[in-house]
Parts: sequence; C-alpha cells; structure tokens
Amino acid sequence: MTVALPSFDDICDAAARIAPYARITPVLRSDVLDALVGAQLYFKCENLQRGGAFKFRGACNAVWSLDDAQAKHGVVTHSSGNHGNALALAAVTRGIAAHVVVPEGAVRAKLEAIERAGAVLHRCAATQAAREATAAQVQQATGAAFVHPYADTRVMAGQGSLVLELLDQVGELDALITPVGGGGLAAGCAIAAHGLDPALALYAAEPQGADDAARSLAQGMRVGAFVPDTICDGLRTLIGEPNFNALLTHRVKAITVSDAETIAAMKWLWRELKQVVEVSSATVLAAMLQQPQLFAGKRVGLVLTGGNVDLDALPW
Amino acid sequence: MTVALPSFDDICDAAARIAPYARITPVLRSDVLDALVGAQLYFKCENLQRGGAFKFRGACNAVWSLDDAQAKHGVVTHSSGNHGNALALAAVTRGIAAHVVVPEGAVRAKLEAIERAGAVLHRCAATQAAREATAAQVQQATGAAFVHPYADTRVMAGQGSLVLELLDQVGELDALITPVGGGGLAAGCAIAAHGLDPALALYAAEPQGADDAARSLAQGMRVGAFVPDTICDGLRTLIGEPNFNALLTHRVKAITVSDAETIAAMKWLWRELKQVVEVSSATVLAAMLQQPQLFAGKRVGLVLTGGNVDLDALPW
Repeated sequence: MTVALPSFDDICDAAARIAPYARITPVLRSDVLDALVGAQLYFKCENLQRGGAFKFRGACNAVWSLDDAQAKHGVVTHSSGNHGNALALAAVTRGIAAHVVVPEGAVRAKLEAIERAGAVLHRCAATQAAREATAAQVQQATGAAFVHPYADTRVMAGQGSLVLELLDQVGELDALITPVGGGGLAAGCAIAAHGLDPALALYAAEPQGADDAARSLAQGMRVGAFVPDTICDGLRTLIGEPNFNALLTHRVKAITVSDAETIAAMKWLWRELKQVVEVSSATVLAAMLQQPQLFAGKRVGLVLTGGNVDLDALPW
Repeated sequence: MTVALPSFDDICDAAARIAPYARITPVLRSDVLDALVGAQLYFKCENLQRGGAFKFRGACNAVWSLDDAQAKHGVVTHSSGNHGNALALAAVTRGIAAHVVVPEGAVRAKLEAIERAGAVLHRCAATQAAREATAAQVQQATGAAFVHPYADTRVMAGQGSLVLELLDQVGELDALITPVGGGGLAAGCAIAAHGLDPALALYAAEPQGADDAARSLAQGMRVGAFVPDTICDGLRTLIGEPNFNALLTHRVKAITVSDAETIAAMKWLWRELKQVVEVSSATVLAAMLQQPQLFAGKRVGLVLTGGNVDLDALPW
C-alpha cells in the first residue's frame, strides 16, 4: 500500500485540528550553547509536549481525522515507546479505545505509562512480523483503525505542525535539524519548513549505529533492513518508504553521530538548558558540535523530541 | 545595621529595572502531578532564569540600583553558590567588576561557573566570620558595593518580581509556596503576593535538617545559629533578620520536609515536568505531597528555584 505524503495544507489543517489538545511547547535558548557551537540555537522543547514527546501531535491528528463511524471502533498501533503512549493519550481526548501491540522485552516503565494512559495492551513476540500480525488481528477483531508510528499521512502531518509553531515563535531560520528514525518527524518537518521557506536548509541527525537514512540518501535509494547498534532507542527504526521519499525530495542532509558524541551532547542539554531530554533528542546538538562549520553564525532550529528517560539508568 | 524590607512599589520598580536583562521564565503544568496532589499546580521555572536560578533577579536589581559613581567601583559578595554566579552575570550587564568571596571547600564546578561569568574570586576560610571579614577587606580595597545574598532590600525586591510575573501569567492563585533558606526569596515573594492579593495563602518549605525558619515562626522570635544537616545545599542558611520579619508579618506558614521526601519529589519533577531542578527546589512539591489536605482543589503556585545540579552526583 502506498502511503501519500501530506501536503503543506494538510499540515496546516493538522495544526488546527490538534490545537485544542496539544501544547504549544516553549522554545529555549542558551548563551553557553550558542557560544559553544558558534550559532544562534532555538531549541523546540517537545519533551514538554503531552506524553513527553512530539509523538502526541501525529497521534492526535490521526485520531481526530477519523470520521465518527470509524472512530467509535477505536485505534490500534504497534509500539513499545512514545507512539503507543501518544496514541493512548490522543484516544482519551476523543473518548475512544486505544489498542497497543507491545513486543516482549519492552521496557516495563514505558508499558506502564501506556496502560496508565488507558490503552489495552496486546503482547506479542519481539519481531516486526509478529507486531504486524498481532496488530492486524486486533484490527480485525475490533474494527479499530490502524495508525502506523511514522509511515502514515496523518501522523507525518501532525509532526510537521511543530515547525509552523516554531517559525511563528522565533521568526525566520536558516536551518532546521531533527533526529531521524522512522522518519515521521523528519518528513513532516521538511514539508512544513519548505512550505513556509523553500530556502531553509534541512538536516537530519542519525546515530552511526542506525544510519540507514544516511546510507539511503547517499545512494538515492532506500536500503533494506539492518541490525541497529545504538543507545538511541527511539532511532533504531528503518526509515519508512514515504518518509525517505520526503527527505530525498526536500534535499535533507544526514549527519551521523556516535553514541559517545550523543551522550556528551545530552549532558550539555541537561546542564545548560535544564531540560530532561532522551538520548535520541541529543543527536541534533551532537551533529552541530561535530560539524559547526555548516552552521557558523546561522539561526538554527533544533527539535528536542522527547523527555521520557529512565532516571535510574542514565548513560553516564 | 537594620535592613529595610522592600515595599510593593520597590518590587514593581525592580521588575521594570531588570526587565531588559532577566528572562520571563515559563510556567509549566502537569496532569500527573495535579492528580498526585489533588490540586492545580503552576510551576514557575526559575531554573530557566539566567544563571540557572532566581538569584539573577535580586543581583541584577542590586547592580542596576547603584548610581554611576558607586557602580564604577564594582560589586562584592560572599557566596559559594548561585548568588555569586548571579552577581557576576549581573555585573557583566552593566560592564562593572564583580568580586566574589568563596570559602575553602566550595564545589569546584560552581566556582568555575562564577569565574567563567567574569568575576574575581577571593578565597577565604570556611567560616561565616572569615567570609564577612574578607568581603569587608575587598570592599575597602576596591570601593566595591556590598550585595548581601538575602538580607538586602534590593535583593529581596528583585526576587519578589517573579511573583508579579507568575500572577500575570496564570491569573489568581489561592496559595504560593517557595523554599526558605536565608529568606530573600520567601520575603520578596510574600510582599509581592500580598501587594497584589492580601488573601493569598503563603507557605515556605524548609528541610527538617535546617528548620530554623519553622522554629522561629513557631516561637515568634528568630532562633540563633545552628548546624544544618540536609542535602539541600541552597537552604542551609540561617534566615536573615529582615527576612524573618517579612515572613512573620505576612503570616507565612512553614512546612518542614525530610531529605527523603525531597529526593522523591525531585524525581517526580524530573520525570513529569522534564525539568532539571536542584534538590532545594523540590522541597516545595515535597511539602505539598506531605500535606495535601492544605491544598485540596486549590490553585497553587510553586517556585522551582534553580537547576544547577552536578549531573555526576545525583542523589538517587
């Protein structure tokens, strides 16, 4: 099944659709980090979004895009992380059921959060095939609408809404950098950014141990499945087909970073911005610290994607 | 020397005076923490103030209250923590020198921050007498104006400005809770709050191992020096004379909390608000969790005082 990319108008519609439920997240700045990189940095704090991650935007847009006849059967997804939690929270805003298929071995704290948000958990084996099969079963049994974590038009549109908000808050930017995993965020943000300003330079930060987007962009063709090896648990995903197409079309440049660079950047963010952010979020600052010459003197937006961290297992 | 309390007008003047330099800090909310306490909580994030603490407000007001003839000789204080750093940063905004007397044994990271902010460090023995004597020597040698960390009219007025900002951001509140150490924050906030709304209930959270303000309020008279025993390094101070008078006049109620309660509350703040806050800041939530019946169903402002934490030595 081909998944269409959202248009700029779809993203504007998504922003209006989720406005009653999503938070307008603050943009933070730091003199110390500006000096460190040699640029003007605008940190979009999606760690302060509902559910502690940008994922609420896409999930909420998907939930409120359903017509009433569809919606009454609820929604279903497979996710062991922020998307499952976001979909559960979004379903509550519409008073419908959420089913989340979770693989064995998922982090207990994350599962508890999803359950606390009111979702029904469905356990399955820890393979992609088992996830998809179980989600399909739940879909058949309940009639729930499937909401893919990133290869979904409504989800990409919802994530892109954060760029409209960011540019409204800070004015024009020279560049924007997001992390890239499955690519829902990177694709939505690219379409939104170029809808407002076609000259805006776009970057995607990716862990070296899950650099499929970088390799795919380098060869102009999406690479196949791989075994991720990175501490960035939110970015271990193979980039989606429509997501990759969006990155290619919008000339997004990938920058890959080592886990050591990311952990160092994470500490800078905690110390100077006073924000609890996930390790995946820190890839964006790590990329700028690795390649400051790309950003020298520029106004750069950085998306801090989430703040759901196990405080008892910090990576330093 | 008697130190006068600031008037409500002094606080309004301070707010205007520091407006070009201080940040308007965000107010954050959390459904989870609201449900936990059973009240509506408005967290004023002074961890996001310049220098990472509310102290910049008072220091900046003091620096810009000097006339030009005084200012050209610079400012001096004794502090091993946030006030020294704040005074150094405030002095930079006026282009004048800052001298900070620091006791032996102070945390190196904090001293480096003060030096990085451009202050001249003067080391002394780790006693109150040595601090005061060294500060007096520096004052004599340089002509610098002394700015006490809390028993100073200009400092209290500056700290109180955060309440004007908070009530402007969120509207009326039923109660306000701040931590109390030397009492610059608690006194300034009490005067500001009652200047706007005499019915607002005021609380001060204090560690059990440094409960001099609670004991002083209980007996209506300021107790003498004591040996603090608490993890809250920002709150080990004996409350100042004018500060205590302000708390008494404004019927501030003290709530004492154990270090264990404070550490648990700190984790809640990091996990749910995604904010890096110091352990001293967490006393306010710890107090509410200990005595939720005082706040049931109410709209309560909580001041998160600072976020300068040693990430390599977290208390859990």
